[in-house]
Amino acid sequence: MSRLDSFIRRMTAQRDVLNHIGERVRALDGPVLELGLGNGRTFDHLRAHFPGRRIIAFDRAVGSHKSSTPEPENLIVGEIRESAKPFAGINAALVHVDIGTGYEEKDAITLTWLPQLTVALLAPNGIVASGLELDHPQLESLPLPHNVKKGRYFLYRRVE
Amino acid sequence: MSRLDSFIRRMTAQRDVLNHIGERVRALDGPVLELGLGNGRTFDHLRAHFPGRRIIAFDRAVGSHKSSTPEPENLIVGEIRESAKPFAGINAALVHVDIGTGYEEKDAITLTWLPQLTVALLAPNGIVASGLELDHPQLESLPLPHNVKKGRYFLYRRVE
Ligand SMILES: C[S@@+](CC[C@H](N)C(=O)[O-])C[C@H]1O[C@@H](n2cnc3c(N)ncnc32)[C@H](O)[C@@H]1O
Ligand code: NI
Ligand code: NI
Repeated sequence: MSRLDSFIRRMTAQRDVLNHIGERVRALDGPVLELGLGNGRTFDHLRAHFPGRRIIAFDRAVGSHKSSTPEPENLIVGEIRESAKPFAGINAALVHVDIGTGYEEKDAITLTWLPQLTVALLAPNGIVASGLELDHPQLESLPLPHNVKKGRYFLYRRVE
Repeated sequence: MSRLDSFIRRMTAQRDVLNHIGERVRALDGPVLELGLGNGRTFDHLRAHFPGRRIIAFDRAVGSHKSSTPEPENLIVGEIRESAKPFAGINAALVHVDIGTGYEEKDAITLTWLPQLTVALLAPNGIVASGLELDHPQLESLPLPHNVKKGRYFLYRRVE
């Protein structure tokens, strides 16, 4: 399987996972956080699926298409490890995390701080969908949609 | 349809189109050219499907994953409009072009030089697969695979 094939599978899994949790997220209060804005395609998807919901996006640099760039007050530029800290306690309904690099060594460093940060951002029962596996006692795995293979995308609920 | 949805469709169309023309390309001599290396995912796909074939990739900057970075002699860094000119007459079996920006104005400028350049790079009967529509008297449309909707990706053969 080429990297193009696996990229298509990962993007499809991301989209299917986000669609799958729509009802759960709509049943919760609180904003949606997009960690890793990139081109803004997923931001655009979140916006379409959660109309009226505040969506705050984070990236180290703004590289989004102009049609998918959040308002300045919802766009936080900087290293997420630091830039998201002030948002601890915001009680997010959903945190979507797409900051894997394709380099295991780099992702291992990210995973030293990402799970705790995610928990701090989430409301109780809040949902996190992530391209990287998150290991934390307050994150309980949720079932994936049937068409997404285990390990291709990750889905959790924050428990107390 | 969100930009994530249409991105998945476009990447899937790209992959399906490239798979569809495999036999045709293998029947021709000449290198494969990848205009717009990017992350290198499509380069990796081309490499898997055309083993032993020389693949030359072009980009204004090297941003590819280290596992998908061509050897230096097959990686041409610069503005394609200029950097690909010395390769006119190389008789490529396949040119793959993925340099659309999502901005119509920018793509319109690209299309003032891209069709002629592509023709100059191709062998007679050589194939071009492109994310942008190419309008040139020496480029004849080829049928898309049945699962790819017209206008989602473009496929041509160079005629005399
Ligand atoms: C959409 S990306 C290609 C993605 C690639 N198919 C992959 O698998 O990752 C487009 C790339 O083309 C490059 N590019 C676009 N226009 C260019 C030009 N006129 N000259 C040189 N590079 C260009 C950009 O720098 C970018 O890396
Ligand atoms: Ni394949
Ligand atoms: Ni949708």
